[in-house]
Amino acid sequence: MLEQEEQREELLEKIEDLISRKRYAELRDLLLPLEAPDIARLCEDLDEQTLPLVFRLLPKEQAAEVFVELDSDQQEMLIQGFSNTELKEVLDELYLDDTVDIVEEMPANVVKRILRHSDPEMRKSINEILKYPDDCAGSIMTTEFVDLKATMTVEDALKRIRRTGPDKETINICYVIDEGRHLLGYLSIRTILLSEEDDVIGDIMDTNVIFAHTLDDQEDVAQALNKYDFLALPVVDTEHRLVGIVTVDDAMDVLQEEATEDIEKMAAILPGDKPYLKTGVFETWKARTPWLMMLMLSATFTGMILTHFENSLAAVPILTSYIPMLSGTGGNSGTQASTAVIRALSLGEVRFSDLLRVVWKECRVALICGVCLALANFVKMMVVDCWLLNNPTVTPAVAAVVCCTLVGTVACAKLVGASLPILAEKIGFDPAVMASPFISTIVDALSLLIYFRFATWILGV
Amino acid sequence: MLEQEEQREELLEKIEDLISRKRYAELRDLLLPLEAPDIARLCEDLDEQTLPLVFRLLPKEQAAEVFVELDSDQQEMLIQGFSNTELKEVLDELYLDDTVDIVEEMPANVVKRILRHSDPEMRKSINEILKYPDDCAGSIMTTEFVDLKATMTVEDALKRIRRTGPDKETINICYVIDEGRHLLGYLSIRTILLSEEDDVIGDIMDTNVIFAHTLDDQEDVAQALNKYDFLALPVVDTEHRLVGIVTVDDAMDVLQEEATEDIEKMAAILPGDKPYLKTGVFETWKARTPWLMMLMLSATFTGMILTHFENSLAAVPILTSYIPMLSGTGGNSGTQASTAVIRALSLGEVRFSDLLRVVWKECRVALICGVCLALANFVKMMVVDCWLLNNPTVTPAVAAVVCCTLVGTVACAKLVGASLPILAEKIGFDPAVMASPFISTIVDALSLLIYFRFATWILGV
Repeated sequence: MLEQEEQREELLEKIEDLISRKRYAELRDLLLPLEAPDIARLCEDLDEQTLPLVFRLLPKEQAAEVFVELDSDQQEMLIQGFSNTELKEVLDELYLDDTVDIVEEMPANVVKRILRHSDPEMRKSINEILKYPDDCAGSIMTTEFVDLKATMTVEDALKRIRRTGPDKETINICYVIDEGRHLLGYLSIRTILLSEEDDVIGDIMDTNVIFAHTLDDQEDVAQALNKYDFLALPVVDTEHRLVGIVTVDDAMDVLQEEATEDIEKMAAILPGDKPYLKTGVFETWKARTPWLMMLMLSATFTGMILTHFENSLAAVPILTSYIPMLSGTGGNSGTQASTAVIRALSLGEVRFSDLLRVVWKECRVALICGVCLALANFVKMMVVDCWLLNNPTVTPAVAAVVCCTLVGTVACAKLVGASLPILAEKIGFDPAVMASPFISTIVDALSLLIYFRFATWILGV
Repeated sequence: MLEQEEQREELLEKIEDLISRKRYAELRDLLLPLEAPDIARLCEDLDEQTLPLVFRLLPKEQAAEVFVELDSDQQEMLIQGFSNTELKEVLDELYLDDTVDIVEEMPANVVKRILRHSDPEMRKSINEILKYPDDCAGSIMTTEFVDLKATMTVEDALKRIRRTGPDKETINICYVIDEGRHLLGYLSIRTILLSEEDDVIGDIMDTNVIFAHTLDDQEDVAQALNKYDFLALPVVDTEHRLVGIVTVDDAMDVLQEEATEDIEKMAAILPGDKPYLKTGVFETWKARTPWLMMLMLSATFTGMILTHFENSLAAVPILTSYIPMLSGTGGNSGTQASTAVIRALSLGEVRFSDLLRVVWKECRVALICGVCLALANFVKMMVVDCWLLNNPTVTPAVAAVVCCTLVGTVACAKLVGASLPILAEKIGFDPAVMASPFISTIVDALSLLIYFRFATWILGV
């Protein structure tokens, strides 16, 4: 029963109908069984008058869950309309990391109001997490985890979990710390439940803990959670004190965001953090123009090459008509290689030490690809361009020039495409920007140089 | 303490040293504290003689965990070398869904051996899951979950969890079924632990269950787990009987794979399922050539347009030198729009009903982008091409042709780029193949047509 678009339309109509007829009890019964993310999606289509009304119908806990899932404009609107008591109620129900996410999106006056109505401990934790730079483990962790002492028995531990559990983000993994809050080990709730009541935590815990530092890159943390199939990863400060945990749901979001960011960079877009339809026209323009501009200006070189060989083109004008095909094929070949390598780099499948293996592999792939394309193109030029379209200037010699260029271009494209991202990563650049558009621009220029070289050799122009 | 490349090199050296000196006890102590995925990465660099040796040093449970993480060639090699007893031991330790993954990769004779040495219940479950087509919920689920009855008390439930827990993939979420195994509700281990011992499961369970059907697309299932922040999602058959669960770690893998697949398709590569360096040259060639070939042949149209306007180009030869810049900028603009839309589609942010909003947004973005680029290009042509490079054929009229074409090309590119993926999805095609290379080919032809139109109007050629 995964979400269906039609159901949503139907529900929306029902909601609007119930509101217009003021059947609030029925509306509440309609919403109660829904999951928070689904209610939030429905709320997107409600206006300023109806949203607070619907929101107030929900029970406290569900209301808080829905609140977290709303987009920041709607959250702000709701907060502005909340009485102080209402705000406090919602805040009390939120998990710390969600509160931090909300605080990060709100304008200063709303943040002040939120902090004023959080309890002192919460306020301290929020300020703590806000200190960490974006994109690091500290900024996505939560401080609401279960901590145990190594000297506790399983019975003590279960008592502690039962007492503190309701406020924790997860009880599935518990962490063992000493008096100085240093991380000693961890154990899952399964281990605890499957042990005897008088077993000592220190004896049954796992002391080989994979942990992150507060300033580790959030992507590395998410990859680690994925690699080790953990439900949470502990985060320690420079003195190895446990300060928080990153849970798997947040790691999944990070992986999705990072994939989006890579995809955007590969398409020469400056990455943003808002969904497509929420990004304004001006913002989208700002994200897209810089690379377009740079790539446009760098095409000056290809223009210069063409101007330089103007006489050759005038002598054999048919050569001009194969330029788009050559630069297109070169660009596509380069894109394939660079994309494959960039993705492999970001999944950790390829490292700098693999450079030679990658280059050797691409050499061989390029050779077979190039020869195949050249053969197909030769046949096509002779049959379609020369014979069917009846163009006498398409001679076998011209076809030979085009086909030799194809082989050379594909080879160059694959080599440049595969090696640039690895080299970029080595010197600390983001490999994703070495993708398609950038490679195409380089390959364009190279393919023209190769083209005119072969034209000179074979046609003597 | 996330994985460090240097540590790995160091460890490998130590392992090889200990093996050569036959210090097996030391080697075992070195490996014991490591996590299974890390040991598996180290094993990648071991040869056929040492791998079984190292593997046999590990305790049973850890050995099984490492086995799952190895790549299929190494798994096959190990199985071939296992005695029947060893094989049975490893199989007994594996979770069902991991066993299925392994079985799917092995040649027929190895599969037979595996099935012969699994216990009958396991064999039945493996065959059950193997029946489901790839890429559907049934094929990634596990049947090892905790099921409870609605009439049980919390005390009964905890007893059952303690008894059956060791063999289950997760105990964090438990599912409530009736006599006919129909899914009634679910509850987390947290809810169970935080309830009173004599509470009845039927009263405390959540009956609003989000579930998947066995044949639902695995990507939808993974997206649902991500959206609702679940640790597992139940899978039911057509009669609403609970047959398995999909856990969050598998969902994360699916999301990563699907992102890779989208990225590959966007780069005109036929998606494969092996890591970059494990894919053979021939396989890579097969994945890359079809689209390259198709795109190369479709560039025939741009060639025909150029041949058709040969006389215009002969009259004003400088026009030729701006063709790569125009087609490059058009291609890049189209790539940006299509990539943004494809990603938004795959994250569920954009649907078919948003088509007009998307088009309207892209229209405005295209207009400002186009005008900006045109202005910059006009200045560049006048200052660099005409004045600095001292090319008298670059007149303001020529610059006007190029700049008007830029605006038109960017507009076409953004509109085609943004709308094609949405239309493709509507008619049931994969939007990702409507990406960069495909759009570029269309935009190339369009930009040339626009170019020669403006050339005729402004320059009268």
